[in-house]
Amino acid sequence: MACCGNCFCCQCCCREGETRTPEELAILGEIQVEEDEILPRKDYESLDYDRCISEPYMEILEGMNSKKTKKYEAVRWMMMFAIGVTVGLVGLFVDFFVRLFSQIKFTLVGDSIEKCSDKGCLPLSLLELLAFNMTFVFIASVLVLIEPVAAGSGIPEIKSYLNGVKIPGIVRLRTFLCKAAGVLFSVAGGLFVGKEGPMIHSGAIVGAGLPQFQSITFKRINFDFPYFRSDRDKRDFVSAGAAAGVAAAFGAPIGGTLFSLEEGCSFWNQGLTWKVLFCSMSATFTLNFFRSGINFNKWGSFQLPGLLNFGEFKCSDGDKNCHLWTAVDLAFFVLMGVVGGLLGALFNCMNKSLAKYRIRHIHPKAKFIRVLESLLVAMVTTVVIFAASILLGECRELSSPTTHNTTLSGSEDINSTIRQFFCTNKTYNDMATLFFNPQEAAIHQLFHQDGTFSPVTLSVFFLLYFLLACWTYGLSVPSGLFVPSLLCGAAFGRLVANILKVKLGMAIYSGTFALIGAAAFLGGVVRMTISLTVILIESTNEITYGLPIMITLMVAKWTGDFFNKGIYDIHIELRGVPLLEWETEAEMDKLTASDIMEPNLTYVYPHTRVQSLVSILRTTVYHAFPVVTENRQNERDFMKGNILVSNNIHFKKSSVVSRAGEQRRRCQSMKSYPSSELRNVCDEHNAAVEPAEEGEDLLQQMLERRYAPYPNLYPDQSPSEEWTMEERFRPLTFHGLILRSQLVNLLIRGVCYAENQSSATQPRLSYAEMTEDYPRYPDIHDLDLALLNPRMIVDVTPYMNPCPYTVSPNTHISQVFNLFRTMGLRHLPVVNAVGEIVGIITRHNLTHEFLVAKLRQHCITI
Amino acid sequence: MACCGNCFCCQCCCREGETRTPEELAILGEIQVEEDEILPRKDYESLDYDRCISEPYMEILEGMNSKKTKKYEAVRWMMMFAIGVTVGLVGLFVDFFVRLFSQIKFTLVGDSIEKCSDKGCLPLSLLELLAFNMTFVFIASVLVLIEPVAAGSGIPEIKSYLNGVKIPGIVRLRTFLCKAAGVLFSVAGGLFVGKEGPMIHSGAIVGAGLPQFQSITFKRINFDFPYFRSDRDKRDFVSAGAAAGVAAAFGAPIGGTLFSLEEGCSFWNQGLTWKVLFCSMSATFTLNFFRSGINFNKWGSFQLPGLLNFGEFKCSDGDKNCHLWTAVDLAFFVLMGVVGGLLGALFNCMNKSLAKYRIRHIHPKAKFIRVLESLLVAMVTTVVIFAASILLGECRELSSPTTHNTTLSGSEDINSTIRQFFCTNKTYNDMATLFFNPQEAAIHQLFHQDGTFSPVTLSVFFLLYFLLACWTYGLSVPSGLFVPSLLCGAAFGRLVANILKVKLGMAIYSGTFALIGAAAFLGGVVRMTISLTVILIESTNEITYGLPIMITLMVAKWTGDFFNKGIYDIHIELRGVPLLEWETEAEMDKLTASDIMEPNLTYVYPHTRVQSLVSILRTTVYHAFPVVTENRQNERDFMKGNILVSNNIHFKKSSVVSRAGEQRRRCQSMKSYPSSELRNVCDEHNAAVEPAEEGEDLLQQMLERRYAPYPNLYPDQSPSEEWTMEERFRPLTFHGLILRSQLVNLLIRGVCYAENQSSATQPRLSYAEMTEDYPRYPDIHDLDLALLNPRMIVDVTPYMNPCPYTVSPNTHISQVFNLFRTMGLRHLPVVNAVGEIVGIITRHNLTHEFLVAKLRQHCITI
Repeated sequence: MACCGNCFCCQCCCREGETRTPEELAILGEIQVEEDEILPRKDYESLDYDRCISEPYMEILEGMNSKKTKKYEAVRWMMMFAIGVTVGLVGLFVDFFVRLFSQIKFTLVGDSIEKCSDKGCLPLSLLELLAFNMTFVFIASVLVLIEPVAAGSGIPEIKSYLNGVKIPGIVRLRTFLCKAAGVLFSVAGGLFVGKEGPMIHSGAIVGAGLPQFQSITFKRINFDFPYFRSDRDKRDFVSAGAAAGVAAAFGAPIGGTLFSLEEGCSFWNQGLTWKVLFCSMSATFTLNFFRSGINFNKWGSFQLPGLLNFGEFKCSDGDKNCHLWTAVDLAFFVLMGVVGGLLGALFNCMNKSLAKYRIRHIHPKAKFIRVLESLLVAMVTTVVIFAASILLGECRELSSPTTHNTTLSGSEDINSTIRQFFCTNKTYNDMATLFFNPQEAAIHQLFHQDGTFSPVTLSVFFLLYFLLACWTYGLSVPSGLFVPSLLCGAAFGRLVANILKVKLGMAIYSGTFALIGAAAFLGGVVRMTISLTVILIESTNEITYGLPIMITLMVAKWTGDFFNKGIYDIHIELRGVPLLEWETEAEMDKLTASDIMEPNLTYVYPHTRVQSLVSILRTTVYHAFPVVTENRQNERDFMKGNILVSNNIHFKKSSVVSRAGEQRRRCQSMKSYPSSELRNVCDEHNAAVEPAEEGEDLLQQMLERRYAPYPNLYPDQSPSEEWTMEERFRPLTFHGLILRSQLVNLLIRGVCYAENQSSATQPRLSYAEMTEDYPRYPDIHDLDLALLNPRMIVDVTPYMNPCPYTVSPNTHISQVFNLFRTMGLRHLPVVNAVGEIVGIITRHNLTHEFLVAKLRQHCITI
Repeated sequence: MACCGNCFCCQCCCREGETRTPEELAILGEIQVEEDEILPRKDYESLDYDRCISEPYMEILEGMNSKKTKKYEAVRWMMMFAIGVTVGLVGLFVDFFVRLFSQIKFTLVGDSIEKCSDKGCLPLSLLELLAFNMTFVFIASVLVLIEPVAAGSGIPEIKSYLNGVKIPGIVRLRTFLCKAAGVLFSVAGGLFVGKEGPMIHSGAIVGAGLPQFQSITFKRINFDFPYFRSDRDKRDFVSAGAAAGVAAAFGAPIGGTLFSLEEGCSFWNQGLTWKVLFCSMSATFTLNFFRSGINFNKWGSFQLPGLLNFGEFKCSDGDKNCHLWTAVDLAFFVLMGVVGGLLGALFNCMNKSLAKYRIRHIHPKAKFIRVLESLLVAMVTTVVIFAASILLGECRELSSPTTHNTTLSGSEDINSTIRQFFCTNKTYNDMATLFFNPQEAAIHQLFHQDGTFSPVTLSVFFLLYFLLACWTYGLSVPSGLFVPSLLCGAAFGRLVANILKVKLGMAIYSGTFALIGAAAFLGGVVRMTISLTVILIESTNEITYGLPIMITLMVAKWTGDFFNKGIYDIHIELRGVPLLEWETEAEMDKLTASDIMEPNLTYVYPHTRVQSLVSILRTTVYHAFPVVTENRQNERDFMKGNILVSNNIHFKKSSVVSRAGEQRRRCQSMKSYPSSELRNVCDEHNAAVEPAEEGEDLLQQMLERRYAPYPNLYPDQSPSEEWTMEERFRPLTFHGLILRSQLVNLLIRGVCYAENQSSATQPRLSYAEMTEDYPRYPDIHDLDLALLNPRMIVDVTPYMNPCPYTVSPNTHISQVFNLFRTMGLRHLPVVNAVGEIVGIITRHNLTHEFLVAKLRQHCITI
């Protein structure tokens, strides 16, 4: 018991409901499921990253040579380029319209306020603003009604997908259209949302969809280009697309690549990294090219890397004592990291409660309730912005605009976005400057404005933004979280800078503190590490910020992890996605594969009757079935008269490669091979007596042995209830895995042979026929049984995966986990020392929750 | 035959020696090994990255809880920080002394030339320079004599190490000392070598050594801190150290991390990436902190990121039409990439021939010959530098120094490093400026000097540098290749820029072309991709260069790969290291595991006599042995009277987990577990008849079967020559793997039991005892046989790896390869469908050369 005492750490931040310690609960044996605990759901499928090399694939392989391989590779590179360019164009489209709408809105309303501040017709301005915002948000919300998966940032979904979980609908064209159009309106509608998350999701969909050359939403889009129709290729392209999305959003191609690497590193390989980087670069530079051309009319130059960039951090030229940061500042950065982590944890905790409330009380109701909620949030946000700007702003003095020269980085002059509401010349309204601008402009103000913001303004801004952003994330509109978090954190950082610089008189650079504040808060909320560090470095275009950003993010993550998970992980958990962690805890190695596997197997034989297959497929929900033969000694009896059984026994016999047989095969190939140093060895062996049909011989001997404890061998029926445990769990030799989709496909296409024929008469499917229906295979219930002869026999061996990775029952969890995660497996058979299958491991058996429960049980029983 | 026609591409660039086509050779069956073809040597060991969870380890695990795990993790983070700081300090040390020596040298000789140009005593100046250079090179060369592994850049060695090959001596303290001191003198000695490669090697050694807290070179350094003494941990720390080396050398922490990722991605995990990045950051900022403090006396600021930085690329402020690069330039960059690839391939081809010449004619001779060669190169280099500067330099006009303001990046003013030899005021000698400066200064000149270099000067400089650098790389001095390649390429790029700008009058930015030229040539030589892109971006501190650098590198790599391999791969090949590629070609999937495995096994039984073990260990060179039992039916006879055989049979019986047994175990544990939904299921089963000792029962039945085709069961002797193939290759059930080092350890520590005792009386070793001698385990030949009783029996089962990953004989090569490479395996047993071992796969069976040979053979026999 003691051994497990420390292993149950509850990761929820709101645990007041608990009265018993986990140990007590464990002893009682009743794990009181907390009201709000969500266990991984079992209805999510895994993606198949492992390549199944069955016979139809081998036929393609036989025709493969290095020329074809190269051609195939070239197509891949072109697809990567196409994905990058498309994602760049999508970013351009979203950015262009967001800018257009925001500009119209702010210009009109700003003018109205300027006028009304004299005339006293401010409520009219408010109404104008409300009309704009609520219309935009209404459109965004309706778009999400069409495709509910388009809500939110999309990063949890992409993370799950790259982790290997198939979530229905997330990479469909319809989702893409709703997401891209929706985010445009939700950002233009003044909600506290960013467009970065949805950009990443859109990029992933482009990656998934473009190489397929068809769409299920629009059936007419179909170019008959059947390459890349496998989970493996699709997942590769999705990683590239997601990376391109990051690259377009932040102008951070390396960060994007690392983002895909961080989220999807389970199945990483070198060639892919390079392609993903190329795809990201293409996206960044497509965007850059067009934006530079459109915004500055300088076609051919590259001046605006990403949708979000932070401008240039630079000391004014004259100031020789100015440093962006010094060693002393690092101590403050660490403290800010701690505070950022705490704030982030608070944000996540609040958002989690809110999300649970929504799941329980809003989602079950009529759909228009969600639209109403979005409109409510839009209204409150608008009113708050308006009221705060008018009532709480302070007039601050303007710094001279010439000290800051940012022409080179291509961003607009920092003072062009200040707002002067109610302030006299040479001063500006600091609150309005932050609230009455697009969020990117507000971030620029906080990072680069030399004029100060008052501490009160910053505090109020931070507080309002924090609460509203928290309320907004989870609404049913497309909504990113990066920009709101950055803005919120930047306000916090600027506040710290204000205090240190103005109150304590320290010589610091305010922009750095604002940046670090932004990093700290963002890190506290999302808990991403490597990729976020690189994204922020790339967005600032200043490598020297590497260390402070990294330390801040690390501290923020550690602090936050003390309380709860990152926001994306929380939302993944709320959906019950069986996500696999990076690695298992060392403690889990107390368990072995046999402790966690699923021992109740539904299996098929190499040769099975149609009726058995149909009944298995209709009565189970498993996605794969082991192909097995039984371990019997009295096989000859059963071989007589029963073609099914004898075919199965023959298959088993032929599939067992023995050392002696292998050696003989080698020697034979040596003999046909004119000269080799190995020939001598073989000749020597051949000189020795060699029974002509040793294999046949062994079978004879095997068959002569008599041993029949079980009543029915190779039954056509499913197990009956009266069987003893020995009958139910008799030894089965494992030969391969076959997927449900493959079996259904075989049945639909009538791949079977009659009892009185040989299995060679069975029709053969080509690889194209096997994968034609990807990704949505027909269901067994769509099958017309009248077309099938139930007594026909199906030979599944050419179509099964004949050599999946397997583990032994004594393998420790860390090894099982590594194999499963790294190879991107879907089913992992557990096979004992004599080749019998004893269980099967799937994603669900490796989730953290399942392992913790098993470890608890393990500790009690020993 | 046709199927394989395209698969043999010869990767050597000098193939005139061949007269027959590969096909003809294949048909003849005699693969005429080209005189210069080097096959992977078999005497390199693999590192063991897979964790072996044997019983002693389980004991440690039992005591593990989350608190201890965290403590252990904290120590790792601290080690990472320590490694980073140490690498940074090493970089500082090397840099400081190189600068000091170079400054003394150039100041003295420069003064002498200035004086002598009037007096005509130039030969005296030459002698002075010769004296300096040859002394320095002599010291460097002697240091390498002490530790020959310290020669060269060290990157091939580190690459091999991270790939999983153990190369003796490369991570020893003595190597470190010789390398760090040697590179200092070889750079100061004016050779055309860089200090970046050796920095990376030094970093890797620091990473390997620091966490060990002991040294074999200096026995007295031993703090008795036994953590991290396994191949797995060491390899992790080496990746971190290598990354820190890159980070220190180029100021590129992300590039360093990606370098480790690119080279060692076979065993990558998320937690490690984060630690490696932290380690790299620590190194960069340690170096930055001290260099900023020492060079500018500004302690606490961070202004000089890496040993090599490229300065700031920036248009002059007034010029609004200046762009660093435009879309049109991209076309030139692609062309430059092609040329760079060609030049790189030429460089590699020449260097390969030279290296072969050295291996054949210089290495076998007395060691001092190598010193003489180094001195010869030093002399030629010095004379060439001197003569070219004096005779071939042109006087060019100086640009006004104020247009270029680089104070912020902290680099010295660009005009401080020009040389005016024989030129009047306001002009400078362009050749001398390039040759009479440290290489970093010359690179800065080419990148940033607004004044032009004459095309003739640039061409001559390029040519001389190309030839001399090619001659130098491979000398027995520590010598990096990055800086010479960059300089060479920058001259080429600057030449292109000169032609485009001056001759064709295009509006281009010369610095960009110099940078792209440098990238193209470097890419053509080293063929690194991802990490090099990032390193160059980080060194320039300009994200917008991402796309051009990446495209150039990619084109250069593809062009170069058309002719030969990268320089590091060539040197790895010349050493015969069995490196594993990133992935296998698709064609290789025509082969299966049974085609490539080693079928001749030397195995041990779970219980084996000491005499058998000693004889096996003394007569074989394998590093691991499968632990097997034989597949016999008449086991009961042999059990009688023979304790060894009966112990083995008992082990086999107990080790086979069956489905029924597993199910029973679960039900029993359910019963002791108070409440569960599973209990009903189990109760139902328990109600069914359950034979009390079903396992025992099965054994009985198994034993009753009679079947004895083989004369000797579980023999104590090794196989005799008269056996038939059936005897020799009888079926063996696989149970685990045991390493040679473990067996020797067991024998030395007397872990065995007497024939009349139970195996429980065997002494138990703790985990610390098992790993005490890491990394150099005692040899079997050191064992004193007189101390051993040959009739004692060793029970190896508690110490073997009971569940290594295995594959089935039909598994295709791509799957085998992925498993082997990704999991960092050392031995991969091939086990058939009934659990019998049929062969074993090691690194040698997966090298490209071996696979190609097997594929050729496969195509002939089918």
